[in-house]
Amino acid sequence: MTEDHRSTCPIACTLDLVGDRWTLLVLRDIFLGKTRYDEFLASPEKISTNILADRLRRLEAMGMVEKQPYGAHRKRMEYRLTERGQSLGPILEAMVQWGRANVPGTERFQPQSSH
Amino acid sequence: MTEDHRSTCPIACTLDLVGDRWTLLVLRDIFLGKTRYDEFLASPEKISTNILADRLRRLEAMGMVEKQPYGAHRKRMEYRLTERGQSLGPILEAMVQWGRANVPGTERFQPQSSH
Repeated sequence: MTEDHRSTCPIACTLDLVGDRWTLLVLRDIFLGKTRYDEFLASPEKISTNILADRLRRLEAMGMVEKQPYGAHRKRMEYRLTERGQSLGPILEAMVQWGRANVPGTERFQPQSSH
Repeated sequence: MTEDHRSTCPIACTLDLVGDRWTLLVLRDIFLGKTRYDEFLASPEKISTNILADRLRRLEAMGMVEKQPYGAHRKRMEYRLTERGQSLGPILEAMVQWGRANVPGTERFQPQSSH
């Protein structure tokens, strides 16, 4: 636990790390097979470019995603989950279950083929 | 799904409802057996009174908690989980598991005896 955390509660600490409106949605996209900036921007929630850039930077700093260049342009990055990022799967899964049971009209998003 | 939601994704919808830094901590407290305003304020995360009041009001509006007066003063309220509120348990549990495994120094908070 670091000084950034509000208490020793594991729920509070998890929320301190990923408990905002966007971080878990970026992780969802990566779980679904998306790897690239323009793919994240194309998601229906319409994340803004500055929030996306910030959340990817934080996720990388937290060791949950890693990026590597792809293609001819060294500046184009692909993002993938680390093992630590993968370990957030059960939280996302619990939200999928709860949302489907409690919010009419929701449907689990389907994985897309990876690059 | 209502117009308040960003997409039909069950994760996005769940985050729209409870995905802020405080709502799930108030729910945690109620799961742990706390029912009263001053008990929520005494939690180590030090929620402010105005945020607490707002989150309790929203949780009641979402049908996740219900309040009833207690004691001699009609204005003193006790808050308890509804069935819908109870159904968020697996999300909190997934966060407990993740936090304990990934944030050193965290420990599951213990239930307290109810009134």
